[in-house]
Amino acid sequence: VTIIDVHGHYTTVPNEQRIYRRRMLEDLDSVGELKITDDQIRESLEKAQLKDQRERGITHALFSPAAGPMAHHEGTEPVSQTWARTCNDLVYRASTLFPDSFTPVCMLPQSPGVKPANCIEELERCVNQMGFVGCNLNPDPSGGYWTDPPLHDRWWYPLYEKMVELEVPAMIHVAGSCNPNFHGTGAHYINGDTTAFMQMLESKLFEDFPTLKFVIPHGGGAAPYHWGRYRAIAERAQWRPIEDLLQNLWFDGCVYNQLGMELLIRTAGADNVLFATEMYGTGQSVDPRTGRTFDDTTTYIDAIEWLSEEDKRKIYETNALKVYPRLAKRLE
Amino acid sequence: VTIIDVHGHYTTVPNEQRIYRRRMLEDLDSVGELKITDDQIRESLEKAQLKDQRERGITHALFSPAAGPMAHHEGTEPVSQTWARTCNDLVYRASTLFPDSFTPVCMLPQSPGVKPANCIEELERCVNQMGFVGCNLNPDPSGGYWTDPPLHDRWWYPLYEKMVELEVPAMIHVAGSCNPNFHGTGAHYINGDTTAFMQMLESKLFEDFPTLKFVIPHGGGAAPYHWGRYRAIAERAQWRPIEDLLQNLWFDGCVYNQLGMELLIRTAGADNVLFATEMYGTGQSVDPRTGRTFDDTTTYIDAIEWLSEEDKRKIYETNALKVYPRLAKRLE
Repeated sequence: VTIIDVHGHYTTVPNEQRIYRRRMLEDLDSVGELKITDDQIRESLEKAQLKDQRERGITHALFSPAAGPMAHHEGTEPVSQTWARTCNDLVYRASTLFPDSFTPVCMLPQSPGVKPANCIEELERCVNQMGFVGCNLNPDPSGGYWTDPPLHDRWWYPLYEKMVELEVPAMIHVAGSCNPNFHGTGAHYINGDTTAFMQMLESKLFEDFPTLKFVIPHGGGAAPYHWGRYRAIAERAQWRPIEDLLQNLWFDGCVYNQLGMELLIRTAGADNVLFATEMYGTGQSVDPRTGRTFDDTTTYIDAIEWLSEEDKRKIYETNALKVYPRLAKRLE
Repeated sequence: VTIIDVHGHYTTVPNEQRIYRRRMLEDLDSVGELKITDDQIRESLEKAQLKDQRERGITHALFSPAAGPMAHHEGTEPVSQTWARTCNDLVYRASTLFPDSFTPVCMLPQSPGVKPANCIEELERCVNQMGFVGCNLNPDPSGGYWTDPPLHDRWWYPLYEKMVELEVPAMIHVAGSCNPNFHGTGAHYINGDTTAFMQMLESKLFEDFPTLKFVIPHGGGAAPYHWGRYRAIAERAQWRPIEDLLQNLWFDGCVYNQLGMELLIRTAGADNVLFATEMYGTGQSVDPRTGRTFDDTTTYIDAIEWLSEEDKRKIYETNALKVYPRLAKRLE
């Protein structure tokens, strides 16, 4: 069985990176280059993500910079540019050290109030020069105040044009929250997912970009659970059926409970769910009821009796290869 | 069978109310009093909520002002004070015209940046003088920018003290969204629910107020679907088990699809789900697959084969009487 995890984060980076970030925020001009050795990278992964991958039978993971620390709201745009390059270089190095285990996905140098077109250069660098296969797109660079335009605004279109041209999908992924109302992984993440879904539903985004592809992580936020609500809204507004979204939109399977996972797959269908763990992310603690970490998501999928082997394979492998054509080429 | 709907809104108010609102926002001093006759109120309800109640076998509904138009972000605090009194008076009149069908629940005169203690006077007026049994509390009076403190901040405590003293629960309910990122009923509502849940989970609010009661509407936002995620967060932070929240927290059953409803009841348990429709709200359109409106939520509950008659009765009736003691007294 091939199992591709579309949602891995390099959250175990050596501490030098955090120190570098702090210094960068204090004085960008004098920060210089981040110095981390290959051995440090190996060590940070071998007893962590790689060990868990082996133990769970996960063949390969899309690997992107840690999401919270993307913190697009901190500092100026030049800070975000330098930070994105630094973090992307690190996941790239991880992927060259462990090419069988990781394929890199990039963060973007977003900054509140700054046009997303400014991210194109870094996206091209990552995809064309370093073999990245996707990007993480933050729908709220303000970190919880939602002051930039929604995803269907033309503000974002130049970036989408480039994504389409390069054939890279975006995972919609907020960064950390600086709004005390929003717990990062418990509220801001999930709200970001729900909000992005609704922005896609209420707009003509996919009419303008018929080949644009988005992955909404964390099981699509609240969307699958409230599928009837979204159908009701679409019916009332006389929009096209919400299932049409599923031509451009996939949900990842970062849902850490059996009922939620089953609801997700039943609702979105096996064609639109991508296996994912968020490792290392929100689900790293051990569930005292099972003795396994919450993010051991193969266990929920494997426990579904009504899921055919064919559908399981879609979720574990073939959907990911379809959504990420550059991943398919890389793994050939 | 007695069926109590804990989530009804007076959304069919005569148009005079909307005109009055516009005038109030233009010039509060000259607005005078809203003039709507008893006959207008009767007419606005008889062919609408009351007809649907009869057809669906709903015995009684908690009835509060329309949520979107609470619009606490519009105008100044005095505007919100006048508007809350006006809207509360209208649901009160509806409840006196149809006492067997409606019990009133009030909106609060919240205003961004204004301390919630300023809502106490209106809450007392409604509860002590007019027999209201609950209130709707907006966790984000800014209408989608989330600029006020979270629900666990002491900012809110004076209001909670009064709620406890009066024995009235609050339904956590945002108003409309003025943030173009958030579709009102599709994103802002659900995000408000998810956010409120997480604020309760991450805080010691219910240690400070062991008898405070909240209802999170719309099936608890994303919370039940992501129950494992919240358990993971609580385990990692070594908080108490999230199930402890269910001593102070109930979810309403405004979930408009079968799988979601079943997940909700399985996850929260029959003791913590309150039957609800949101009438008239998001679910008023007809599902072409069933020919019924999406918010005909008895059909989802009645279709659950594994739900015992006893549990059904809890959801339909007895939980509501337990959560709203003043409703129990009123219906005696």
